[in-house]
Amino acid sequence: MFASANLDHKVDKETYRREEAELREQLLQAQTELTASGRFPVLVVVGGVDGGGKGETVNTLLEWLDPRRVQVHAFDEASAEESERPAMWRYWSALPPKGTLGVFFGGWPTEAIVERATGERSVAAFEARIGDMMRFERMLTEEGVLLLKFWFHLTKKQQKRRLTELSEDPDTAWRVTRQDWKDYEHFDAFESASEHFLRRTSTGAAPWFVIPGADARHRNLKFGRTLLASLRERLDQTLAPVPDDSPELLEPDAVNVLTALPPAEPLDERAYEEALEHWQGRLALACRHKRFHRRGLVVVFEGLDAAGKGGAIRRVTQALDARHYQVVPVAAPTDEERAQPYLWRFWRHLPRRGQVLLFDRSWYGRVLVERVEGFCAERDWMRAYGEINDFECDLVAHGYVVVKFWLQITPDEQLRRFREREKVKWKQFKLTPDDWRNRDKARAYEAAVCDMIDRTSTSEAPWVPLAANDKNATRIAVLKTLVERVEAALDL
Amino acid sequence: MFASANLDHKVDKETYRREEAELREQLLQAQTELTASGRFPVLVVVGGVDGGGKGETVNTLLEWLDPRRVQVHAFDEASAEESERPAMWRYWSALPPKGTLGVFFGGWPTEAIVERATGERSVAAFEARIGDMMRFERMLTEEGVLLLKFWFHLTKKQQKRRLTELSEDPDTAWRVTRQDWKDYEHFDAFESASEHFLRRTSTGAAPWFVIPGADARHRNLKFGRTLLASLRERLDQTLAPVPDDSPELLEPDAVNVLTALPPAEPLDERAYEEALEHWQGRLALACRHKRFHRRGLVVVFEGLDAAGKGGAIRRVTQALDARHYQVVPVAAPTDEERAQPYLWRFWRHLPRRGQVLLFDRSWYGRVLVERVEGFCAERDWMRAYGEINDFECDLVAHGYVVVKFWLQITPDEQLRRFREREKVKWKQFKLTPDDWRNRDKARAYEAAVCDMIDRTSTSEAPWVPLAANDKNATRIAVLKTLVERVEAALDL
Repeated sequence: MFASANLDHKVDKETYRREEAELREQLLQAQTELTASGRFPVLVVVGGVDGGGKGETVNTLLEWLDPRRVQVHAFDEASAEESERPAMWRYWSALPPKGTLGVFFGGWPTEAIVERATGERSVAAFEARIGDMMRFERMLTEEGVLLLKFWFHLTKKQQKRRLTELSEDPDTAWRVTRQDWKDYEHFDAFESASEHFLRRTSTGAAPWFVIPGADARHRNLKFGRTLLASLRERLDQTLAPVPDDSPELLEPDAVNVLTALPPAEPLDERAYEEALEHWQGRLALACRHKRFHRRGLVVVFEGLDAAGKGGAIRRVTQALDARHYQVVPVAAPTDEERAQPYLWRFWRHLPRRGQVLLFDRSWYGRVLVERVEGFCAERDWMRAYGEINDFECDLVAHGYVVVKFWLQITPDEQLRRFREREKVKWKQFKLTPDDWRNRDKARAYEAAVCDMIDRTSTSEAPWVPLAANDKNATRIAVLKTLVERVEAALDL
Repeated sequence: MFASANLDHKVDKETYRREEAELREQLLQAQTELTASGRFPVLVVVGGVDGGGKGETVNTLLEWLDPRRVQVHAFDEASAEESERPAMWRYWSALPPKGTLGVFFGGWPTEAIVERATGERSVAAFEARIGDMMRFERMLTEEGVLLLKFWFHLTKKQQKRRLTELSEDPDTAWRVTRQDWKDYEHFDAFESASEHFLRRTSTGAAPWFVIPGADARHRNLKFGRTLLASLRERLDQTLAPVPDDSPELLEPDAVNVLTALPPAEPLDERAYEEALEHWQGRLALACRHKRFHRRGLVVVFEGLDAAGKGGAIRRVTQALDARHYQVVPVAAPTDEERAQPYLWRFWRHLPRRGQVLLFDRSWYGRVLVERVEGFCAERDWMRAYGEINDFECDLVAHGYVVVKFWLQITPDEQLRRFREREKVKWKQFKLTPDDWRNRDKARAYEAAVCDMIDRTSTSEAPWVPLAANDKNATRIAVLKTLVERVEAALDL
């Protein structure tokens, strides 16, 4: 990876002045087009050797561009705020929206490489981590992000010279810490781990570019030109949309996870009230438990219109302290959310540890309504299963308990509830023309729900499909499931 | 993954007869179109639980289709022939060419899952393996293979019933071995490892499809319909080619791995003869050494026209026994090779252990001539670096020593050699109009060579660029490098 960068590169002043002027003009032009079109975001990931000139070159880039449309983020040790959330949260929250350019210093490559170089991670664990990172990057590029990865390189000799120069000048001596010299001792391990990481994660859609760091003029030009060429290429591309007319696959028989659900035993008012008090009490206790502070609970409610999601959520929140939970109703994405990869709008809501987060509809919209209505192409919702599994895996790895409810009502029961909503004045707002339209697509929804449960029910985050014709029974089943999952997670 | 498949599915005889007739006709129609268009190969990977009906269903498929255009491969324990080669070799050699359909029984998914289920692999090693498999599958789909993965599932109860039924019938008792019952004991571990593997390797381009195995009629219909739908969708797709007009990136200075090569010290005839004898002798000894039998040597020669590849190769083969080496001259691919993923034509040549394989030009054509001449799009040659690294990694992991020479001559020296070829009659065949044309693209080739060396020089399989203006010096340098690499590998 570093053969070219190991050579002594140099650009003289005269050439630089001439070339820089031209490059600057073209970069600014490209940025203006990017802003105007708002077609895609540009994410520049910058990593490399200490003293390799990352900072100086990015500063130069900001002089060249309109800095109002560029966000720069540096990722060192995770902040308190960050370490309360799953590891990838800080990257998600910093993603640049469409039409803008984001620069990430350090970030996931540096994190993974340092852990390997210091021996914190075994070779196999490093490879596993590389797999995670490749899935994350693939998700970004398939979501349309122009992902440009730059590695600023110095040879061991160059780094030593650089550190010595800085130390000897009284004005810059403060910049060299004892840690820097310590890192220098591990130069070889660091270089070999980075070479491996760079090779493995260089893909057709997002290759690494190695920038030799020793000569500032050469470095700036090489970085700027590479950035410009990739940006230019993407701006000039006009891709025809991929046709998507795959027919809905019919099951050979009528048996599926929904039709096979046994009907729930109806619960009369008295039994309901008793059970409600019991399970709400236990849930309250469990969520106030000391060990829950280091955990968290994420609950997803999905179901057809009028399946009783709202009512079930209210029975849960009644048991909780308002400071410790949040209900997120999910409707059509906002403009800001549409300018980001699909899962961004869910990452942004993730709570600190010790909180309960309840989603009234969720990220599963991608593989339900968006699939059925044709809002996204088959290859997009098909890859979404994997992306969602990865997302929930991140949540579970961070200690959250993840529970997903599918509330299943029969078509007759749905019709009865629609009629009731028509009649009762204060329920009318709940019924929209969309609801009637969706009923016509019942078969397509059924197929989508079954696929969803198959492809995203995991041992860590299983789906709990509930026969939901009886509201009382459903609400108790929801509470009971939550209590059991949380108590098990806390070893109560 | 298995929620739907865990249910009891059934299709009655009458329905089956009707549906099968229709399905069969449509499948045959699709196969005919596939053959006629020859646009892409179809690879059907079949895995799953013992007794899940994989074999029966594939047999049914062969009754439905024209079996002359279907190749079926079963992968159990590696054969002697197979274990002499890198692990992925048997999959490469069995890949179906464009226009045909291949069925793989078992294969890489089963291999990885069994190793995890039996505890042979740790969780981290399993994840690393999953990463390898994902890269392999991505390469296949990006090369245009329609990759369809089916998992035949049984519940634990169903498997037990199935094994008992078979054992109790005297006609089928022989089919149930003691190993089958042993495997049954590990059902849960096997199921949990397969669920994880299936989830991780389900991608938008190649998702898994789970087929419930208990009811034969249901199983056949579900399998056949899924296959048909995917095949139909791909046949009906007409994708516009992606435009590719990225400009060649100019380096900010003239320093690169080629211009930085120090000129070689010329070697007079006498010194050359002496050195030749010395190094050829040592190479012969090393390659006859007992420990070499478990290794192997793969050598790549690349260089501009008239760089002296052929001459250098002859000096190597002079030292070897004709039964133990093979020279592969690489020219334009044959029809058969064009019907396969790019690297297929190199995999097919891989020798057994203990052999020497010399490539006169190689897989690097993808990132040299194909890139410069625009025979393949940027995103294809860009991903080829990673694919090539993976390929060479497989070779090294298998014990081969991999050495790659770039023979670099100056434009003046090249011109001198061209003129000489024009004059000397028996050398005229070596000079074609292409050679003159390639000279005009010298700058583009230079950029391509530098990128190639940067992106594919690895600690396991490094590039050795040689200043090759002096033929004698070059040949000795080649021999010396080979001797040193082989001796080091054998600990001599």
